[in-house]
Amino acid sequence: MTGLAACQHWGDLFMIRVGIIGVTGYTGGELLRILSGHPEVSVTYATSRYAAGQEVAEVHPQFKGLLSLRCSKFDEEEAQLKTDICFCALPHGESMNTVASLLGVGLKVIDLSADYRLDPGDYYQWYKKKHFFPHLTEKAAYGLPELYREQVAGSELVANPGCYPTASILALAPLAQENLIDFSSLIIDAKSGTSGAGRNLSPTLHYPNLTENFQAYKVAAHQHTPEIEKILSLLSGQPVKLTFTPHLLPMSRGILVTAYLRLKKSCLDNDIQGIYSQYYGAEPFIRLIEHPQLPETKNVYGSNYCDIAWRLDERTGRLIVIAAIDNLVKGASGQAVQNMNIMFGLSE
Amino acid sequence: MTGLAACQHWGDLFMIRVGIIGVTGYTGGELLRILSGHPEVSVTYATSRYAAGQEVAEVHPQFKGLLSLRCSKFDEEEAQLKTDICFCALPHGESMNTVASLLGVGLKVIDLSADYRLDPGDYYQWYKKKHFFPHLTEKAAYGLPELYREQVAGSELVANPGCYPTASILALAPLAQENLIDFSSLIIDAKSGTSGAGRNLSPTLHYPNLTENFQAYKVAAHQHTPEIEKILSLLSGQPVKLTFTPHLLPMSRGILVTAYLRLKKSCLDNDIQGIYSQYYGAEPFIRLIEHPQLPETKNVYGSNYCDIAWRLDERTGRLIVIAAIDNLVKGASGQAVQNMNIMFGLSE
Amino acid sequence: MTGLAACQHWGDLFMIRVGIIGVTGYTGGELLRILSGHPEVSVTYATSRYAAGQEVAEVHPQFKGLLSLRCSKFDEEEAQLKTDICFCALPHGESMNTVASLLGVGLKVIDLSADYRLDPGDYYQWYKKKHFFPHLTEKAAYGLPELYREQVAGSELVANPGCYPTASILALAPLAQENLIDFSSLIIDAKSGTSGAGRNLSPTLHYPNLTENFQAYKVAAHQHTPEIEKILSLLSGQPVKLTFTPHLLPMSRGILVTAYLRLKKSCLDNDIQGIYSQYYGAEPFIRLIEHPQLPETKNVYGSNYCDIAWRLDERTGRLIVIAAIDNLVKGASGQAVQNMNIMFGLSE
Amino acid sequence: MTGLAACQHWGDLFMIRVGIIGVTGYTGGELLRILSGHPEVSVTYATSRYAAGQEVAEVHPQFKGLLSLRCSKFDEEEAQLKTDICFCALPHGESMNTVASLLGVGLKVIDLSADYRLDPGDYYQWYKKKHFFPHLTEKAAYGLPELYREQVAGSELVANPGCYPTASILALAPLAQENLIDFSSLIIDAKSGTSGAGRNLSPTLHYPNLTENFQAYKVAAHQHTPEIEKILSLLSGQPVKLTFTPHLLPMSRGILVTAYLRLKKSCLDNDIQGIYSQYYGAEPFIRLIEHPQLPETKNVYGSNYCDIAWRLDERTGRLIVIAAIDNLVKGASGQAVQNMNIMFGLSE
Repeated sequence: MTGLAACQHWGDLFMIRVGIIGVTGYTGGELLRILSGHPEVSVTYATSRYAAGQEVAEVHPQFKGLLSLRCSKFDEEEAQLKTDICFCALPHGESMNTVASLLGVGLKVIDLSADYRLDPGDYYQWYKKKHFFPHLTEKAAYGLPELYREQVAGSELVANPGCYPTASILALAPLAQENLIDFSSLIIDAKSGTSGAGRNLSPTLHYPNLTENFQAYKVAAHQHTPEIEKILSLLSGQPVKLTFTPHLLPMSRGILVTAYLRLKKSCLDNDIQGIYSQYYGAEPFIRLIEHPQLPETKNVYGSNYCDIAWRLDERTGRLIVIAAIDNLVKGASGQAVQNMNIMFGLSE
Repeated sequence: MTGLAACQHWGDLFMIRVGIIGVTGYTGGELLRILSGHPEVSVTYATSRYAAGQEVAEVHPQFKGLLSLRCSKFDEEEAQLKTDICFCALPHGESMNTVASLLGVGLKVIDLSADYRLDPGDYYQWYKKKHFFPHLTEKAAYGLPELYREQVAGSELVANPGCYPTASILALAPLAQENLIDFSSLIIDAKSGTSGAGRNLSPTLHYPNLTENFQAYKVAAHQHTPEIEKILSLLSGQPVKLTFTPHLLPMSRGILVTAYLRLKKSCLDNDIQGIYSQYYGAEPFIRLIEHPQLPETKNVYGSNYCDIAWRLDERTGRLIVIAAIDNLVKGASGQAVQNMNIMFGLSE
Repeated sequence: MTGLAACQHWGDLFMIRVGIIGVTGYTGGELLRILSGHPEVSVTYATSRYAAGQEVAEVHPQFKGLLSLRCSKFDEEEAQLKTDICFCALPHGESMNTVASLLGVGLKVIDLSADYRLDPGDYYQWYKKKHFFPHLTEKAAYGLPELYREQVAGSELVANPGCYPTASILALAPLAQENLIDFSSLIIDAKSGTSGAGRNLSPTLHYPNLTENFQAYKVAAHQHTPEIEKILSLLSGQPVKLTFTPHLLPMSRGILVTAYLRLKKSCLDNDIQGIYSQYYGAEPFIRLIEHPQLPETKNVYGSNYCDIAWRLDERTGRLIVIAAIDNLVKGASGQAVQNMNIMFGLSE
Repeated sequence: MTGLAACQHWGDLFMIRVGIIGVTGYTGGELLRILSGHPEVSVTYATSRYAAGQEVAEVHPQFKGLLSLRCSKFDEEEAQLKTDICFCALPHGESMNTVASLLGVGLKVIDLSADYRLDPGDYYQWYKKKHFFPHLTEKAAYGLPELYREQVAGSELVANPGCYPTASILALAPLAQENLIDFSSLIIDAKSGTSGAGRNLSPTLHYPNLTENFQAYKVAAHQHTPEIEKILSLLSGQPVKLTFTPHLLPMSRGILVTAYLRLKKSCLDNDIQGIYSQYYGAEPFIRLIEHPQLPETKNVYGSNYCDIAWRLDERTGRLIVIAAIDNLVKGASGQAVQNMNIMFGLSE
């Protein structure tokens, strides 16, 4: 009836068998929601350390009646037998070994953690963990299809981007590609809903503390910073250091990124329009929002879209670029499924 | 990619052509969301008094890129040419004539207003409007598929139930059918998110007034009361007068209904379990929630499910039945599409 | 500048020295907020198991600059030396011994827990704990000033009422006193903001789980039920068993109670008006809300008021009484300070 | 009992008689809340165009029982008779004439609108209105006590700052005063709760549209920009043009400002600490938040505090300054009362 329910019994032949490693978190649940509506996929394996033996619908009660699947303890041989591809939705640091095991038994892997996104040096600096499989990081494709579709298509391992980097990089990629950004001026002020912080309890996320509250956190110290810098640097061919400040919104889903920069050469609004239109012209999940509208997180709620708009501040000569995504969809699970579609040659 | 996007280009032949009369409201937008994911349907006509000439995606910006459809001024001949069935999502009172026109040109109609749900006498008493087409009301099927699937299948006009009545009747129908309810004891305490109040601005719905606020309204005077009474009376073969109190929740979507009653004869928990299981056993959109879980509006957010649970209060001999729906889906647009599927013999 | 700040340096002589046992919870914080604005009180002692040694303003950062007070580990002799009265804001079960110790060293005590509110038998049945000081329970005054002002004035130990009982009993006391309630018909459907659940982390109170969500809990099993029954029974001289259903609102503060009942004899609206006006006429913190207005939790946010209104449902012969309080103020700390004022002969 | 109620019957002699012109808005209501707790003030006059003749407690139901005052139509002679000072809480543009009238009959005035904050040229450019009383603007004190306490003390007319300028200027004043800011680098990314937008209905503020939503608005075009620039320019002795982007938070109260800048000379954290401590050392309503804490809007909810913290981003050489206020208190009515206290030589 809804998209979800309507689709689920179609196409019984040649289904791709999918495993979800770490199904109990929010990204795991969102993977289930999206994959349940996917006509060419069957979720055949799901693991959880805490809920092994339970029905998935006990952990995510919204799926009662929609799914009949029991959580297993992770076992690479069972994964090998039961799946063609695994989504790894484990916490940063825990994903590293599991991904290596899955690749070792010949499976394709899409890793939603940060473990295969950064050079091992940056990884150590920002995550305070030594990386044991640097050769796998080298082979991983960075799963931002708008930038790296071909690499994703040809790779066995996709490092799915973080939520903040997805919004930030998509906001800036067309300008970076043209080498138009004066990176010494670049500031990203980002705001996220609380589901981005995951299912772990903390006083910050305790309802009475967070409702009617707003705050910055990890100012100039957030671990997504090097991921944004790395990709912008690759695109522009220049070293990039930027200031990144995340904030926590009193809502569940949605990221809005406000980026400030100076252009290397003077541009008119039409020039910028041209650059963005050309770069994203054919992209199915990028929407350029036309004046006087601006991106709103509500307009991308539950969808895989990234909405982008910009304004020239003529008084100061600065460009302001704003992008909105759903942190659990385009910022995590939706983009992961988009990558899977590319890896298997399906419609995105 | 999401269910929505994934489905929309399948099945080009034999598509049912659908019109939405009054597309700019929340139920209109929700119809679009659901129908966009429906593989056998094409929305070919949409009307709006205020937005005629505009793209639908200008009024509902979340559909930018998903839909290309322009709002028209309503014209019954255009509807006749372009559609097989129309959803009428107009305000109460305005729907009456439009529905009659559409039936007059031979179209099937699903009316989301209250105009064809009540006997003309009750309609006049609670809505303060004279009904001009009482003979059409007689022929209308009440669009609650769990109770009236056959009538819906055979009807040209479906009166789609209100949001509160959907949750309330589904909570109580199995007991009413068995004539087990002592109706003199029946109280329904209902709580709704704000989208139920629609898109019209009011001080009550002004954000700073409503956040961190909770209140009752129309106490013992809500116009959905006679609709609940009518159906429970038909099911039980008894006159029904009940107390109904709606409340406004500081959230967007979701209705939770808490019903209190005494049974005509003493029942054990198992007896009640048996009655509900038998009544709803095969229903695709009813979920009986098992102890110790209880319905939560979040678990039906965006879905067409109605979640139901009950508790016997042994100290007082009372039964408490709780039901949760998404007021815009099972409480309005989702149920309307379910009715359309039944009218055309599709999978619900 | 605000009431808080404006008052705090007045009246240096004859200050009542107050201790707060368990200062780190929400009720502890709210006691601080209210007492900081009290011209005849000085908070001289505050204890916490977890934060002993820390400044109170570290635990409750909103008080930075307003308060300079360090948390101690509880010690009855230190309490005896430093205070005239202690507020005990400990969890149920933990308060029992501490209260007895404080009384033992000659202090007045206002206990915000449930430990001294119920007869030991009921206490054991609902809280699953044996009571070690039943003789103290007998001597405790139930701290609802509107009903028991004299007892509070003359007592060394006040059992401060629970949040749900405060709203429920105040809604019904005038009718119970007149013995007008048919108790077999009495149902209380209650809705509370999340601060009532306290500062302990739980998945239910995790922000992404609770925002845009609504649910019932402890249906027909909430431990505040016997407290309401006890007081209504004392007022009416009759045994009382009622159905009580609490619900959790997606907001921080506020309780709204909707009570349903039949009257023992037929009353007009004017009769009921007369009964409530006479009962509450001189009460400083009760407001009878006039038609067509209804109580809203926002109107009592942060204040010690209880707003009450009622409606006769003429179709069913039922009376509906609605009451709103701030669960942390009139439902806990505000009422506790009101009781302190009465114990010391101050203006309430 | 609360600060509000406790204070209101003290000090009957030599009360300052206060008028509130435009009492029905949110700032009017907040003035009432604060002044009701003020021991040396009596609100003797309140006007409203829409609610003339009604009790103030009908418009602001939270004051029922606390206040007995009827709204009048504005009349300068009545104001002259009944008050010593008037707060003008009218919309921008409407305040201009009323303020002039009140000054004309010899009253002191605190104007909460923007009408007397800017040079007439800037006023015309940003508010699109001609100013009829430029000589009064020249005589107006800018009511930010931390910067202009002496001018406020000696003035008959105080232009009370806007909410965004209050937070922004307080965040940056110590650095501007020292002429340490490289203004070409200055960006202010600001986020406000919805009460800042006032009581006028709009689709943006319609509850279902705004909950779970976040968006920027008036990007590089907000009318508070020149107010911030003017004061920073006066402090630093330099022309200032900055980029200012406001955003709308899904909550009621609170502003958080995140400012980004480069310093003219290299500073250590200790240097900055010294500058802020010296500048604000004795200020009763400024709190410098110590590492690792950061300002949160919840910690200033309902209070007149401005909480400030900063971080040096060593990787980029940028300074990030964060400030939080309650937009209705320090950002409007609380600051207005603080100014009144200064004008009358009272404790702030």
